[in-house]
Amino acid sequence: MSLVVLGTVALDTVKTPQGKKTNMLGGSAAHFSMAARFFVPVNLVAVIGEDFPARHISFLRHKGINLTSLRKESGKTFRWEGEYHGDMNAALTLNTELGVLSAFHPEISEEEKKMEYIFLANVDPDIQARLLDSIHSPRLVALDSMNYWIKHKQRSLRKLLKRVDILVANDAEAKELSGKHSLFEAAVKLRALGPKMIVIKKGEHGVLFYSDTLNFSLPAYPVRKLVDPTGAGDSFAGGFMGYLAKEGVINKQSIKKAVGYGTVIASYNVEGFGLTRTAKLTMKEINSRFNSYRDNLIL
Amino acid sequence: MSLVVLGTVALDTVKTPQGKKTNMLGGSAAHFSMAARFFVPVNLVAVIGEDFPARHISFLRHKGINLTSLRKESGKTFRWEGEYHGDMNAALTLNTELGVLSAFHPEISEEEKKMEYIFLANVDPDIQARLLDSIHSPRLVALDSMNYWIKHKQRSLRKLLKRVDILVANDAEAKELSGKHSLFEAAVKLRALGPKMIVIKKGEHGVLFYSDTLNFSLPAYPVRKLVDPTGAGDSFAGGFMGYLAKEGVINKQSIKKAVGYGTVIASYNVEGFGLTRTAKLTMKEINSRFNSYRDNLIL
Repeated sequence: MSLVVLGTVALDTVKTPQGKKTNMLGGSAAHFSMAARFFVPVNLVAVIGEDFPARHISFLRHKGINLTSLRKESGKTFRWEGEYHGDMNAALTLNTELGVLSAFHPEISEEEKKMEYIFLANVDPDIQARLLDSIHSPRLVALDSMNYWIKHKQRSLRKLLKRVDILVANDAEAKELSGKHSLFEAAVKLRALGPKMIVIKKGEHGVLFYSDTLNFSLPAYPVRKLVDPTGAGDSFAGGFMGYLAKEGVINKQSIKKAVGYGTVIASYNVEGFGLTRTAKLTMKEINSRFNSYRDNLIL
Repeated sequence: MSLVVLGTVALDTVKTPQGKKTNMLGGSAAHFSMAARFFVPVNLVAVIGEDFPARHISFLRHKGINLTSLRKESGKTFRWEGEYHGDMNAALTLNTELGVLSAFHPEISEEEKKMEYIFLANVDPDIQARLLDSIHSPRLVALDSMNYWIKHKQRSLRKLLKRVDILVANDAEAKELSGKHSLFEAAVKLRALGPKMIVIKKGEHGVLFYSDTLNFSLPAYPVRKLVDPTGAGDSFAGGFMGYLAKEGVINKQSIKKAVGYGTVIASYNVEGFGLTRTAKLTMKEINSRFNSYRDNLIL
């Protein structure tokens, strides 16, 4: 089953205790795609500017990502600059330049409109809604957002949540959108907003899953050398959605394995700057770490 | 296998968003014992003052805790007052009255000196060392401490750690004692201080286990209604050590199950103020929640 991901393709400048890298290929849709590609064909919907390096495009194409709906517009590519300190659980955003993202109108191919697995990564909820409108018969729709949209476009976001099957949010976003301090209570409240499944990403603390019939926590995979957390959440989402799209069945077993695959790919993602680690990742490495992760959870 | 726990028996006054309770039976050794009793006979070593209510003593005795080495001294019982806000991950200590704890000299029976499973809960490391000196042939010694001793008696603590098999610490203590931001790096550093096994308690985020041959994370059991987190860490330690003492074997399998049992009993502990929930807990309830916890971890 093919998958459509709407999100950002960006040029990231990141500083961590391990060093600094400028204008790396990044963005939610790029990180998501690099993880999901291990399971299903991925169709990336995003916008870039005229300054976007051609080598990044050929890199993504070389990795098998379908770029039919990656639009190039006049103007500058979306840029993000951030740094991490201390336990590296949260980025400090130093600068954001929206560029072409500020007037993004996603348009997808007729073939993509027939696809059933949709991931709406973090962009303006009105843009997310427009993309979803163009899908003929969505089967599984997941959405990620961020504090900015929760604050400034909560009405659009709440309206859209009623049309979404899975909400993927980090712990801070889950608390902000629900107004609850406890993640469990936050999950219950978010469920009431519409999505049947709530996936709360807790960074190094793993994931909380909540639905009417299933709730569980799974830990992160312990990473020896954390280099750059950027994109960990999107890599997780890519592995999670990619696995579900591949399986084509949503049940207790597939959901837990999907969380496991997302967790494992995210753990590789943070071992290198930007996409460097996931770029050379193999399915063999993923399965090897997945098996060790799964074994450690057997009591 | 019988177990000896050295720690505090206290009168706790606790305020949480769920209410306020004054002068409840509390303390590290009390919470530990109430969890460990489900697996092995527990011998509690602590000191109380003349003001300690007789009903608390009969309560503990009624629960099967051996109180031979619970000494009553002239003076006041150790009292702690704290409150929890927001996500309730950390207590704000409002007041501490050491009372008889400030001149505590643990003395144990000849029978207890022959015991092999020892838990040194959070008291002055010099007192912990003295208790350990009196044990003839310890087989498995675990230790918990706190930021106060890390700051003011780190030399004694480090000396003692060389004689200890398992260090049980919460995340803040692990970071403070190791000087590392990442919990994984903290665990590696703490291992180098002596203990073969490092157990880092992360509250609602579960547990990180580290040894030379085994490292894993396990999540907390999701609690629907968090009432009072006081004693969660000690309940965890009680379930963990109690299970290991009962099994009498330390291997990958027993360690993971021990973490699971500790996790489950801690999850019950926080559902009521002080010891109210663990007081009425049954082995059937523990096993039921353990099975559900274990099932959810099967990928």
